[in-house]
Amino acid sequence: MALRGGVPTADGAVGVEGARPVEEALSSGCHVKAVLFSESGERYRERLAPLIARPETGFPVLRTTDRLLEGIADTEHPQGVAALVVPRNWTLEELTGGTGVTPLIVVLAGVQDPGNVGTILRTAAAFGATGAVTAATGQSGTASPFAPKALRASAGAALHLPIVRGMAMGILLTQLKLRGIRTLASSVQQGETGELLPWEVDWREPVALLVGNEGAGLPEEVVRTADTRVHIPMATRVESLNASAAAAVVLYEAYRQRQSKSA
Amino acid sequence: MALRGGVPTADGAVGVEGARPVEEALSSGCHVKAVLFSESGERYRERLAPLIARPETGFPVLRTTDRLLEGIADTEHPQGVAALVVPRNWTLEELTGGTGVTPLIVVLAGVQDPGNVGTILRTAAAFGATGAVTAATGQSGTASPFAPKALRASAGAALHLPIVRGMAMGILLTQLKLRGIRTLASSVQQGETGELLPWEVDWREPVALLVGNEGAGLPEEVVRTADTRVHIPMATRVESLNASAAAAVVLYEAYRQRQSKSA
Repeated sequence: MALRGGVPTADGAVGVEGARPVEEALSSGCHVKAVLFSESGERYRERLAPLIARPETGFPVLRTTDRLLEGIADTEHPQGVAALVVPRNWTLEELTGGTGVTPLIVVLAGVQDPGNVGTILRTAAAFGATGAVTAATGQSGTASPFAPKALRASAGAALHLPIVRGMAMGILLTQLKLRGIRTLASSVQQGETGELLPWEVDWREPVALLVGNEGAGLPEEVVRTADTRVHIPMATRVESLNASAAAAVVLYEAYRQRQSKSA
Repeated sequence: MALRGGVPTADGAVGVEGARPVEEALSSGCHVKAVLFSESGERYRERLAPLIARPETGFPVLRTTDRLLEGIADTEHPQGVAALVVPRNWTLEELTGGTGVTPLIVVLAGVQDPGNVGTILRTAAAFGATGAVTAATGQSGTASPFAPKALRASAGAALHLPIVRGMAMGILLTQLKLRGIRTLASSVQQGETGELLPWEVDWREPVALLVGNEGAGLPEEVVRTADTRVHIPMATRVESLNASAAAAVVLYEAYRQRQSKSA
């Protein structure tokens, strides 16, 4: 067993390290293959016991040494606890939130920093997104939601928010169009024609928000293909927002509008 | 000379590493004590030349080796360029934005992660904040805005946004009250009495937003002393936002309201 930094093993399992992330993995409904405690992790046993001792759990609870665990872990402080879990495989269908829920999907298209990927997933879950998709663009891939840094930054959202991984952008855009889900290209640079400000967009419709690469943004052709371009206004032209701050702002606006609808 | 990870030297200078950060430092108006190039940094010389060759600059441009620069640098990839700059010392008076501008101040009270500090400063600058204050609370200090990670995450804002560093919380709150600036405690946990949602707050008044520690939030007594408590609503109680995403949402709301006022 190697925890392998968010890269799934042959059977699709990923390593989860640290007390809080393991706790979240155990309560996420993901298939757990094993839980590992080393000496220093024993102090978390009591806290995790209710999640481990359930009758429906059939996974082994293994003992190891701090030294061995640190050797296979990716984080500097694995806290003596780790788990090997198999994230669920979701279909695009399942991301639309089911009956009575209006889809709000976040598409990560070339977000390279695992910290940003995790933070965006956490923000998406907080603001009621029905799911997320990770996609590669011509220019760059998206970091794995299960990389240790992404998992930590997601505060568990990477394991409980429905996520479809590694879709091709072209297929995704077609699929969204077929399902009547409006695509919104988030643009940090001003100057696109037909841009809307976040509060000018009707977020109560079924929508998918496309978030691009930290430096380069979304590829030209994706911006053009999207149904709408959303631009976050800023105080001066020299300023900019980081990718996860920009996503937070736009997802908040969606939630604000959806809240006032239901109120 | 040692770059010292954002901790000012005896004369108040901090080390700035990398082509983009050095570029921002040179154009920030901060007093520059020296610029350093190593072999691999020579390729940035042309780009930085207009900022170095100005008649008013009287600082030395030094040559060093990659090896030496990496030895004193805090970042893994200093890109062969570094500068030693003295950030300006601002007074609270100067943070209020001058005549005709309504103060919007961000107070970082116990934000420990330098990445969060930098991201919040970047977001603050983008949404028209007139300045920021870093303060320690009883529980924890705030990371230096000039730590390498904070400087990078701030995309230059740490050097051009007026910042008052290391104020005592009690004195700050009194000073803000005396100046007629309303204090808003940002709270991620629900349950405070008299909480307002971000869009219920009148952000067109002179305001100071208080942002607390990543895990613990603001200390009880600060939350109680603040004029208003702002709570960001979320889809479910189990979700949460990270400190910089929460600040982004609230600062966006302030900017949105201030924009529609001037429109």
